Amino acid sequence: MKVVCIGSGNVATHIASALKQHGNELVQIWSKQIENASELAKQLAADAIDDLSAIDPSADLYIIAVKDDAISTIASRLKDVQGLVVHTSGATSIDVLAAIPKHAVLYPLQTFSKTKSLDFFNDVPLCIESGNEQSLAKVKDIAHQLSASVYEVDSAKRKVLHLAAVFACNFVNHLYAIGSDILEQDDLHFDLLKPLIRETAAKVQAASPKDVQTGPAIRNDEVTIQRHLALLNGRPDLQELYKSLSKSIKKTL
Amino acid sequence: MKVVCIGSGNVATHIASALKQHGNELVQIWSKQIENASELAKQLAADAIDDLSAIDPSADLYIIAVKDDAISTIASRLKDVQGLVVHTSGATSIDVLAAIPKHAVLYPLQTFSKTKSLDFFNDVPLCIESGNEQSLAKVKDIAHQLSASVYEVDSAKRKVLHLAAVFACNFVNHLYAIGSDILEQDDLHFDLLKPLIRETAAKVQAASPKDVQTGPAIRNDEVTIQRHLALLNGRPDLQELYKSLSKSIKKTL
Repeated sequence: MKVVCIGSGNVATHIASALKQHGNELVQIWSKQIENASELAKQLAADAIDDLSAIDPSADLYIIAVKDDAISTIASRLKDVQGLVVHTSGATSIDVLAAIPKHAVLYPLQTFSKTKSLDFFNDVPLCIESGNEQSLAKVKDIAHQLSASVYEVDSAKRKVLHLAAVFACNFVNHLYAIGSDILEQDDLHFDLLKPLIRETAAKVQAASPKDVQTGPAIRNDEVTIQRHLALLNGRPDLQELYKSLSKSIKKTL
Repeated sequence: MKVVCIGSGNVATHIASALKQHGNELVQIWSKQIENASELAKQLAADAIDDLSAIDPSADLYIIAVKDDAISTIASRLKDVQGLVVHTSGATSIDVLAAIPKHAVLYPLQTFSKTKSLDFFNDVPLCIESGNEQSLAKVKDIAHQLSASVYEVDSAKRKVLHLAAVFACNFVNHLYAIGSDILEQDDLHFDLLKPLIRETAAKVQAASPKDVQTGPAIRNDEVTIQRHLALLNGRPDLQELYKSLSKSIKKTL
C-alpha cells in the first residue's frame, strides 16, 4: 500500500513506522512544522510536506494522526482522495469524516512515546469502525497487519473506552508523579517505588482490580488515613485528592 | 535461623516463605484464627499457634506481620524473647518495639497477593531500621538474604514512603477499578485496557512520570474534558474525581 501520514507526533510515528515495517510504502508525511515532518519522513524514506494541497491524491491509505481539534480541518481537505482515510482518535466520532468517500477509524488503545521501540505494536489493541462494508474490510485488514488484537468498536463505545483509558493511564501516571514528588521532598529516590508500580500493574492482568484492592481506605483504617493527611500538611491539593480517592474506594466496600 | 512468624496474611506468607526458601527454619506461625495459622504452618512445616503465651522464646527471629493497630499489643508480649523482633509495617514507628531488647524494622515496599509466586521477592525493596548497631547489622543480613534491594530508612522517611506507595499503588489500583467499571457498564471488556496499563507502568521505569504525562488535562483540552464529564453524567462521584485529578494535573503545567 501507498500510505500518506498526516501528523508527526507519537501516534503518527508509531503507526507509520509499523506500516513501513510491514512492507507498506510511506509516500508523504505532513506536519504543520516542516522540521517535524522531515524528521519522521527521513526515517521512513518518505517526502516531507507542510502544505495540505500538496497531498498525493492517489495513495491507498491516509492516516490522520493529529490533535483532535484539527481533524475536521484536515478532513475537509481530503474529500477528493481515492484511498481510505482513517483517523486515529479515541474521543472523535467517525462522523467528522462523513464527507470523504472511503473512511474508517483506527484507534490504537495505547500510550506512545517517540523514543519507545516498536516491537510492542503487535500487542496494542486496535479499535476499528466503518459504516461501509468495504471500508470496514479494508481497515480490518490493515489493523490485522499491525496487531493481534483487533476490535470493532463504534464511536459511542470508543468514547467510553477513551474515558476509561484516561483513568487507567493518564490519571494513573499523575499518581506516579505525585508519589515521585512526595519522595523527592524527603530526598527519597523514585526507584524505591518502581517494583511496586510494576507489580500493581501486573496484578490486574490476571485479577479484577476490585478484588485486589489494598491499602488504608479499603481496610477502613482511619488512623492511617489521618496520619497520611497530617503528613500532607501544607499540600491542600494533595490532601483533597487523598480524601476524594479514599472516599471513592470506601464506596466500593 | 529459627524463625517465629506472627501473622498469616499476605506479608507474613511471603516473608516467611522467602525465609524458608533461603534455608531458615520456621518454628511457629501465630494467628488469632488457628485455621489461618495452620494453613501457612503446613506449607512451611511449622507449628500453628493461636496463643501468644505459647510463643517459643528461644528463636533467633520474630517477624511481626499483623495489622498496624495490633502491633503494640503483640510487642508487649515479646519483651522476654532472646532473638531479634522486627515489624514489617510502613506506617508504624520503630518506637512501638522500644521495650524489646533487640528490635528492628523490615518493611517490604511491595503489594503482596497470597496466590502470587515468590520468585519476585529478590526484586522487592526492603527498608530496614534499627537504633542499635548489632540489631541493624542483623536485620541487614536478613534483608540481604531475601532481596537485592536493601535501604536504610528511618521511621519518619518510612512513613513518607508508605504515603507515596498509597498513591502509586492503592490509589492507582482504584483507578484501574474505575476504568474496569466504566467499560463494564458499556459491555466492553477490561482486557482492552491491559496493554495500556502495562505500558503506563513500564514507561516510568526509565522516565520521570512528570515528563511522560499525556491526556486531555495536560494538553488543556477543555473540549475533551467536558465531553468526558458529560459521559459521566449520573456518576457524580466519578465526575468529582475526574475534576480533582484533572485540576491536579493542570497545576503541574
